Amino acid sequence: MDTMQAIFGRYSYRGMYKPEPVPRETLKKIMEAGLAAPSGCNTQTTSLIGLDDARLIGAVSASLDSPHFASAPAAVCVLTQRIPGYADVYFNVQDYAAAIENILLAVTELGYASCWIEGQVTGDAKTQADMAAALGVPDGYEVVAYLPIGVPAKDGPRASKKPFESRAWFNGYGK
Amino acid sequence: MDTMQAIFGRYSYRGMYKPEPVPRETLKKIMEAGLAAPSGCNTQTTSLIGLDDARLIGAVSASLDSPHFASAPAAVCVLTQRIPGYADVYFNVQDYAAAIENILLAVTELGYASCWIEGQVTGDAKTQADMAAALGVPDGYEVVAYLPIGVPAKDGPRASKKPFESRAWFNGYGK
Repeated sequence: MDTMQAIFGRYSYRGMYKPEPVPRETLKKIMEAGLAAPSGCNTQTTSLIGLDDARLIGAVSASLDSPHFASAPAAVCVLTQRIPGYADVYFNVQDYAAAIENILLAVTELGYASCWIEGQVTGDAKTQADMAAALGVPDGYEVVAYLPIGVPAKDGPRASKKPFESRAWFNGYGK
Repeated sequence: MDTMQAIFGRYSYRGMYKPEPVPRETLKKIMEAGLAAPSGCNTQTTSLIGLDDARLIGAVSASLDSPHFASAPAAVCVLTQRIPGYADVYFNVQDYAAAIENILLAVTELGYASCWIEGQVTGDAKTQADMAAALGVPDGYEVVAYLPIGVPAKDGPRASKKPFESRAWFNGYGK
């Protein structure tokens, strides 16, 4: 698969996963892909916790509103540190978003599926605190996303997108 | 090139570019890669303006502090709309960061180089306003990044990264 195939093949999978495990070395490679993303002023504000322990996955994903996500045999929890790039300017949201996109593309490349779950994690203080506690995350880090990883049990629907012409132009807005 | 090669081969290029043009169809494919990124609640808050007009590139990149960036024969300007995913929760920063990472990987796949220039754009209100004016960007959109695109004149240095073990663990923080 070339990069374009991964970019256009990636989608947010919200169905059940097969129990087929994700080998630790594969999970590590996926996480390395995330850490290879750029970060503002190279501050490297993103950290990752890979999960392949079924009991821990059950505990960490219990607060999410879909049992489908908990069926994935592996996952990556994304942590951020609010460290400024310079002065009082922060790029840590951009940093972890780029890392997540790398992870999602690596997942696609390797034949797995995932879904970027962020609002369910950060939108509820208790969910976020429970996840951090289950993973032993210390102060100074914020848990911002949960990415289930596994072989999809079946193909899922793709989000529809607006046409190119309504979001992109050449040499000037609307052109 | 497979996706992993693009992910690990991507780097922030800050040198001069060769004058070799980027074909319009290639630039469009790179922009399509950006628009294929996920967005929170599929709000598609990111828009793009591709640049391949030398005079416009000169005008738009004049405010950036490196003449190297202006030497690129093409570029993508990234726009965001602050539209909530739901209630008062916004994902538009994550959205454009994921789109930019897709663009940078497509650029790498296709043999070009780029650099995510954001702080120089958004950190100075005049630069940001000048860029928006040069591109005819209307109210409701914010110009947040400039991505030069071209064939690098020479290989550039890679940012050094912390070791995996200091940013990533398995089944718990620090493990």
